[in-house]
Amino acid sequence: MQHLREKDSIIKSIQEHTDRVHRLWIEQGYEHASHEVIQEAKRLGVPFRIIPREAFARKFKGTKSHVFLEHDEVAYAEPGGFLKEISSRQDPVVCAFDGIYDPQNLGNIMRSAACLEIDGIIIPKDRACGITETVAAVSRGGFEHVTVARIINLARYMSDMKKSGFFCYGLDERGTIPLWEADLTGQVCLVFGNESGLRRLTREACDQVIRINTSPTFPSLNVAASFAIAVYEAKRQRRLQKTSEKLEVKS
Amino acid sequence: MQHLREKDSIIKSIQEHTDRVHRLWIEQGYEHASHEVIQEAKRLGVPFRIIPREAFARKFKGTKSHVFLEHDEVAYAEPGGFLKEISSRQDPVVCAFDGIYDPQNLGNIMRSAACLEIDGIIIPKDRACGITETVAAVSRGGFEHVTVARIINLARYMSDMKKSGFFCYGLDERGTIPLWEADLTGQVCLVFGNESGLRRLTREACDQVIRINTSPTFPSLNVAASFAIAVYEAKRQRRLQKTSEKLEVKS
Repeated sequence: MQHLREKDSIIKSIQEHTDRVHRLWIEQGYEHASHEVIQEAKRLGVPFRIIPREAFARKFKGTKSHVFLEHDEVAYAEPGGFLKEISSRQDPVVCAFDGIYDPQNLGNIMRSAACLEIDGIIIPKDRACGITETVAAVSRGGFEHVTVARIINLARYMSDMKKSGFFCYGLDERGTIPLWEADLTGQVCLVFGNESGLRRLTREACDQVIRINTSPTFPSLNVAASFAIAVYEAKRQRRLQKTSEKLEVKS
Repeated sequence: MQHLREKDSIIKSIQEHTDRVHRLWIEQGYEHASHEVIQEAKRLGVPFRIIPREAFARKFKGTKSHVFLEHDEVAYAEPGGFLKEISSRQDPVVCAFDGIYDPQNLGNIMRSAACLEIDGIIIPKDRACGITETVAAVSRGGFEHVTVARIINLARYMSDMKKSGFFCYGLDERGTIPLWEADLTGQVCLVFGNESGLRRLTREACDQVIRINTSPTFPSLNVAASFAIAVYEAKRQRRLQKTSEKLEVKS
């Protein structure tokens, strides 16, 4: 979340990035001075709150302004256009997350996603962490290298992806086959749950649920680690396929 | 790091776990009341510091005692016995870390290590994070499932490991071959650096330096992600080997 000092730049930001604005905060006593900003927030349906001076100072430590616009760091891809774009690529690897709340986890995921060059990330619009300032910092700038689409209904979006030719693999401790036995080549979407696994509707929307083999006495791998492993495996299989294709051409 | 309220239990802890105690902290004004504890710390060479009341309260928030013993959460394995033990196992996977400072990273590593059932972890005694309270918490209890040896000189220890039959692979962006082309079966030690890669002496002690293929424009994978991927690959190759051995027996 970024701080914009000038009234004009706040208004501009509300207008241009309405979809990634969370809330407008105003320090009590500055309602009048912030009249124009508040009007614009009202007009575009951006929630706003007026809070006492002490609360404002505590919440936005170091801020010299009396208005704070809380918004995500990135411009999300438009879901329809995103699907069209990734479907046109060769053997894309896309990952969807079913409600990650922890910005540390999402930041680690964004960093690995940039390193491992995945084609895109799908996160829910509600009840999940967005690409906040913390996520951006933990990702070490990785977030700038990854296309992120924010969608309203994951199960429905997965259904659209399947129609476009994607095979959707859910990853869960209780998956039927191990990751290394799954065919991850072609158009693939890897779907991850939160700490409690995949939700029922998401699980049902998957073509197959697979697992990373873990210890029976300590099975619960962190989602960022599962993600890194699964994307690595998808990339490994792609490379292997290319190598054997080359060998076939040669022989 | 754990807080022990009672004087007797602090003395007992200093005596029994001298090797994993970092420092004894005493609140100013309580030197006399803590006389016995201080004497025992002096006798066993445990460093101690007396700090003003405010500093003590700030440092050990919520503590009701006036003495605090800072120590690691685990009993480390004795390096010689550890090497003997792991050398006797079949196809062990061991990982060594060349100076991780960030407890979040080490905690994530300990959690994945427990999940992926690695045979042991080697960390340096100095200039590196130990298994502290934060590490234990981030690992979600995983630290209790993993044997950790703390050694003084990593390069020298790797030399002993090689003599015992271990092949030491360093992991680094500038590695000569990709992970998926390396043979990770047999007795393997995977060696990880910190954010700046492997140090010269550690790198030179490796049999081979390999890399995880990453984006040329954003190459630096987090060490916890690299670790999860490399251990997964080692386990995958072991499984593959077992499967093909079975097939050979059958045919």
